[in-house]
Amino acid sequence: MTNPVLVEVTRGEVVESRHRGAVIVVDADGKTVLELGDVDRPVFPRSAVKAIQALPFVESGAVDAFGFGPREIALACASHSGEPEHAALAAAMLAKAGLDASALECGAHWPSRQESALDLARAGHTPSALHNNCSGKHSGFICTCAHLGIDHRGYVGAGHRAQEAVRDAMESVTGATHAVDMCGTDGCSIPTYAVPLRNVAHGFARMATGIGLGQERAKAARRILSACMAEPFLIAGTRKLDTELMQAASGRIMVKVGAEGVYCGAIPELGVGLAIKCDDGVIRGAEIMVVSVLARLIAAVDPHLAESLRQMANPVLKNWNGIEVGGLRPTAALD
Amino acid sequence: MTNPVLVEVTRGEVVESRHRGAVIVVDADGKTVLELGDVDRPVFPRSAVKAIQALPFVESGAVDAFGFGPREIALACASHSGEPEHAALAAAMLAKAGLDASALECGAHWPSRQESALDLARAGHTPSALHNNCSGKHSGFICTCAHLGIDHRGYVGAGHRAQEAVRDAMESVTGATHAVDMCGTDGCSIPTYAVPLRNVAHGFARMATGIGLGQERAKAARRILSACMAEPFLIAGTRKLDTELMQAASGRIMVKVGAEGVYCGAIPELGVGLAIKCDDGVIRGAEIMVVSVLARLIAAVDPHLAESLRQMANPVLKNWNGIEVGGLRPTAALD
Repeated sequence: MTNPVLVEVTRGEVVESRHRGAVIVVDADGKTVLELGDVDRPVFPRSAVKAIQALPFVESGAVDAFGFGPREIALACASHSGEPEHAALAAAMLAKAGLDASALECGAHWPSRQESALDLARAGHTPSALHNNCSGKHSGFICTCAHLGIDHRGYVGAGHRAQEAVRDAMESVTGATHAVDMCGTDGCSIPTYAVPLRNVAHGFARMATGIGLGQERAKAARRILSACMAEPFLIAGTRKLDTELMQAASGRIMVKVGAEGVYCGAIPELGVGLAIKCDDGVIRGAEIMVVSVLARLIAAVDPHLAESLRQMANPVLKNWNGIEVGGLRPTAALD
Repeated sequence: MTNPVLVEVTRGEVVESRHRGAVIVVDADGKTVLELGDVDRPVFPRSAVKAIQALPFVESGAVDAFGFGPREIALACASHSGEPEHAALAAAMLAKAGLDASALECGAHWPSRQESALDLARAGHTPSALHNNCSGKHSGFICTCAHLGIDHRGYVGAGHRAQEAVRDAMESVTGATHAVDMCGTDGCSIPTYAVPLRNVAHGFARMATGIGLGQERAKAARRILSACMAEPFLIAGTRKLDTELMQAASGRIMVKVGAEGVYCGAIPELGVGLAIKCDDGVIRGAEIMVVSVLARLIAAVDPHLAESLRQMANPVLKNWNGIEVGGLRPTAALD
């Protein structure tokens, strides 16, 4: 099955590039609300499922034991830009467990926000693992181990109890088997399992409604999604779509990007979850897809927010002189 | 027409992302050597045609009048990484015309090579238009104006004589009408015209052979392509594909990337030109496409070089810890 073109990139009056993809929106019973393309082919959800991967952090009692709140939970679900606030909060989480950046096994990279990288260089510093976009998630893994009295070393390995707990949570919430032959290694070195988009969307519908999760897990899921929506800066960063979208939606929508063009999200009041994969792995394509789909869904309950999202789904592209040269737009299939 | 999947991105044993595209290889008579996908749909060739756009720089006599050689010609055809050598050579070209960076109308941006951007920040500097990846091409435009006694100001405009000369050269070499309604503005603010890939490939076959160009233009074309192949660092930069590929091919292959997933190239000894567009605009996809096609073509005359290129067409992807997580590979349609 060939997925449809969902996003066009224009220059002048000409379509210059095209993004294909698959989109699925389901409710907590698994009933399809919207389906485009092949949503049963396994895809790696990557960082888009960090909210589900954070369940053991909350359910273990680590969050409460260390006195963490929405900020630390949001950072555990983040792919952040490595801005000073992000790195400082990850360091503070580790400090509560009596540890520091040396415990992180995600690897170091320069902050993805260029201004933060340049500031770091101007100050004569080099990046640490705290600047890795996944440092919050990893701090959550480490704090969970510390709270449970488990040796955190090697926590990124598929056979470590931290990752077994993550896989169990993922399987239970999405209902998809996480098979060894569908396992890959993520950018931050933890395992990632390819599963159908349909299951991932179903998982987010369950996270948003609590339906089918059991009382304790439903409570943890609600707490995690609420934290993400309450702290959109910590989830991503300055001028990042996830941050701006959740700020605009003020608590009505949760979204999370994943590497290689993945998006997951939920609209709790509508009881739906969504999952998106841009075939080519390009984030700009997945961004237009997720904003367009959310605009369609939210229109039923908030036409004003829907209009704001429609504008976000049609951004203008400018060149180095600030001249408008083209734009991005959803195709009819999506809009 | 749906273009075929030509490149797969793998993670573990799973295909994570896919790039579709169109590829055309023709000889100087326009005879098709290889054709995949829709090669008659208009495409913006962007920076991939800088070698053709440099014809007026050479043909006007500006290159010789200012005492320029292969280095300056190569920089005029470059999308460089803004490394110190690139910025310095652009400045030196402008100085020969009695001008400086303030004459450039391409806009300023941080060097695309991260190390160079960080070095600039560490030294307390900010980028100038000399660091713009197109500063060499623009210095060529300005030097051409200076040599011909034309006011260089406004040289990026479609109605300026500098751009009229570029459009005339492009139309004549590619045989494609450059229509106003197919005109867009490039990242560096000059006009770019959408034309069929087939014509662009034909243009490069003519540039490589001189066939159909007339004696003077054929000489200028040979000089430009030779300069690009002789100075691969100046064409792109450290660890850039164009540089590494032309270094490996030591004078047998010319290639040039363009924004939004375009590649052009030529193999002079085979008398062929090629043009490629990755549908989604992603450079990594276009890179695998161009290297794979070149490996197929060059195998007839240099099996050893073909094998080197095949290895470049199957790169390994590593994560922040240096762990091998997957790779890129051409599909059977391409390989």
